Amino acid sequence: MKQLPLPIVRLRPNAKPQVIRHGFPWVFANELVMDRRTKGLSHGGLVVLEDAERRPLGLGTINPTSKIAVRLLDKDPEAQVDAAWFATRFQRALDHRARLYDAPFYRLIHAEADGLPGVVIDRFGDVAVVQPNAAWAERQFDTLAAALADVTGCTTIIKNGTGRARSLEGLEEELTVAQGQAPDGPIAVPMNGATYMADVMGGQKTGLFFDQRPNHAFAAQLSKGGRVLDVFSHVGGFSLAALAAGAEAALAVDGSAAALDLAQRGAVATGVADRFETRTSDAFDALEALGKAKERFDVVVCDPPAFAPSKAALEKGMRAYERVARLATPLVKEGGYLVLCSCSHAADLKRFRDACARGIGKGGKRGQLVYTGFAGPDHPLMPQLAESGYLKALAFRV
Amino acid sequence: MKQLPLPIVRLRPNAKPQVIRHGFPWVFANELVMDRRTKGLSHGGLVVLEDAERRPLGLGTINPTSKIAVRLLDKDPEAQVDAAWFATRFQRALDHRARLYDAPFYRLIHAEADGLPGVVIDRFGDVAVVQPNAAWAERQFDTLAAALADVTGCTTIIKNGTGRARSLEGLEEELTVAQGQAPDGPIAVPMNGATYMADVMGGQKTGLFFDQRPNHAFAAQLSKGGRVLDVFSHVGGFSLAALAAGAEAALAVDGSAAALDLAQRGAVATGVADRFETRTSDAFDALEALGKAKERFDVVVCDPPAFAPSKAALEKGMRAYERVARLATPLVKEGGYLVLCSCSHAADLKRFRDACARGIGKGGKRGQLVYTGFAGPDHPLMPQLAESGYLKALAFRV
Repeated sequence: MKQLPLPIVRLRPNAKPQVIRHGFPWVFANELVMDRRTKGLSHGGLVVLEDAERRPLGLGTINPTSKIAVRLLDKDPEAQVDAAWFATRFQRALDHRARLYDAPFYRLIHAEADGLPGVVIDRFGDVAVVQPNAAWAERQFDTLAAALADVTGCTTIIKNGTGRARSLEGLEEELTVAQGQAPDGPIAVPMNGATYMADVMGGQKTGLFFDQRPNHAFAAQLSKGGRVLDVFSHVGGFSLAALAAGAEAALAVDGSAAALDLAQRGAVATGVADRFETRTSDAFDALEALGKAKERFDVVVCDPPAFAPSKAALEKGMRAYERVARLATPLVKEGGYLVLCSCSHAADLKRFRDACARGIGKGGKRGQLVYTGFAGPDHPLMPQLAESGYLKALAFRV
Repeated sequence: MKQLPLPIVRLRPNAKPQVIRHGFPWVFANELVMDRRTKGLSHGGLVVLEDAERRPLGLGTINPTSKIAVRLLDKDPEAQVDAAWFATRFQRALDHRARLYDAPFYRLIHAEADGLPGVVIDRFGDVAVVQPNAAWAERQFDTLAAALADVTGCTTIIKNGTGRARSLEGLEEELTVAQGQAPDGPIAVPMNGATYMADVMGGQKTGLFFDQRPNHAFAAQLSKGGRVLDVFSHVGGFSLAALAAGAEAALAVDGSAAALDLAQRGAVATGVADRFETRTSDAFDALEALGKAKERFDVVVCDPPAFAPSKAALEKGMRAYERVARLATPLVKEGGYLVLCSCSHAADLKRFRDACARGIGKGGKRGQLVYTGFAGPDHPLMPQLAESGYLKALAFRV
């Protein structure tokens, strides 16, 4: 079915159309002619974007009330957003992941960089979990899901609409099985030689964090034969990879008993349960208690939630990262390693590194920085938005 | 033999001693009291550093004519820089590398971050190549070499004094066998499943670049089953790893016939010579010629020498990186990968990434950034000097 002629929106004369032509995917509200007609367009609708001279720049989706007023979907203004359009994007994304990974467990679509603004899809074998965190994708969901099943062969498609991003878009919370059968329990996910348990119907985000894969692998290499402390462990990301790589023992600490239960089941599936312990506790309390007990580990990993999710929270967040580093430092054996992670968008690499170094100094040690890692290659970035590379993992020898 | 009482040098009242106490390893000339006595100290001599209140801050080495006037060697002002002192540093560095690598081929000492300012040591099995790029290390060379042989068991120690850094320190060029026998020909180096040939007596720097190891590994993963172009290949760093990982074919381009001869011998040793070709050519000429011939590759790698070795050369260097990206982009098949590297100190990550993105745009494509890599973990950094992380490798899908 051919699309009806789409509404046209236009850049203001002072906006720079070449930025869009060079691939920048967003138009900010102050760059757009915001006449009454544009303001009246429905959120998530398709539009043709033109420059001030009425030359078409591409096909986009509009949100008249957002700071990001238009997200570009296609540089062809006549593109049809239909099943074939989605299929082309899915196939391209799939080719990349299939080249990288032996088994179909990865982030398949990472929003803008994979050509689908605001859409995140994680794949767990035959199960795909879709986060349509933008109004346009919510509207097109059925077409998207059909194309996804067609290209990947996934038999179950779960719609996970539980993120913060959705409420910013004015979308409702929702967690439904859009296609196929809900899996009867957690899904076993092979990664870095370990087996993780992902609860795609009840866990955080899409059930498992694929983004840390290369950082798990690096820390596991440091952990061989050693004793590992994994703080903010969630389902055991760092500890199970370390045990699979030959760590002697690992202790996982998390505030969520449900996450630790999945970690424990992962340890059984990995065949390392005899070397794995868990402790349900506030992370800061646990770090302090372990310090008082004079416990020492060869490798200590702290992978906290985003302490600085926004610019407003930056100073406070940096103090929290520094505190984590300060409390963790004394728990590391002489010559051992401290792995510190941040998934805060607002904390750039230098700022985060400085906070860690200060914390290590206040913890009474000096650290050599031996590794700087980011999210894995199934989390591509647009170079124009690369500052949005939110995940950073630093390994220090202390 | 106990050291004689050492000369004392002192911070100016406006300098901040806490920076040194927190581990910053350098004192700049404008932070030091530069009286006639200090100016008269001999370059490379040991000194005790004090703050303006005459409290000792540590043991250092002085260069009264350099912008970096004092490099800290030990926070203990009474430390004895003797064989045991070197041995402690070597053992600590060795423990880290032994944990990371199965075979003894790595950078063993990476200057400041491994506690030996200005000293670089690469290890090739039983052969160690030492670059004493600082006057203090030149003076202590015999003690250093003896401790190195003792800790590592290396039987041959080569002194490679051919770098630019040495002439800045006023040291003479020199390439000598300090201990044991010179190897009779290139040394076979196992890395990422390939075998490289390192000419430690005649090659660039210490004969092989260990720093690209993780980036070689990542690019090799992308190259499976594909056709690879390796421009500025030196001894075949990226191409041999790709062939060992299952690339269908690789073409290595370099201006040095000697480097390509080593690459060819490496291909034979790796057992991939039937899939490997070399071309002795200026890299820009080769990129243009391949473009005209409409050649296409699944993966194109460009790992040029430092185009921006200093801040003065930054603008020109960035244009050179952009030009590399522009010429390489059309050689990449649709959906293939372009790996671009910079070993320029002066080019920070953001600037380099922007130059690459501009070049890809001018080459007529858009790129997803799928990977950002740095030097491997045998090249640790002091967090305070982490901006000096000179090596960057970016992988784009275009």
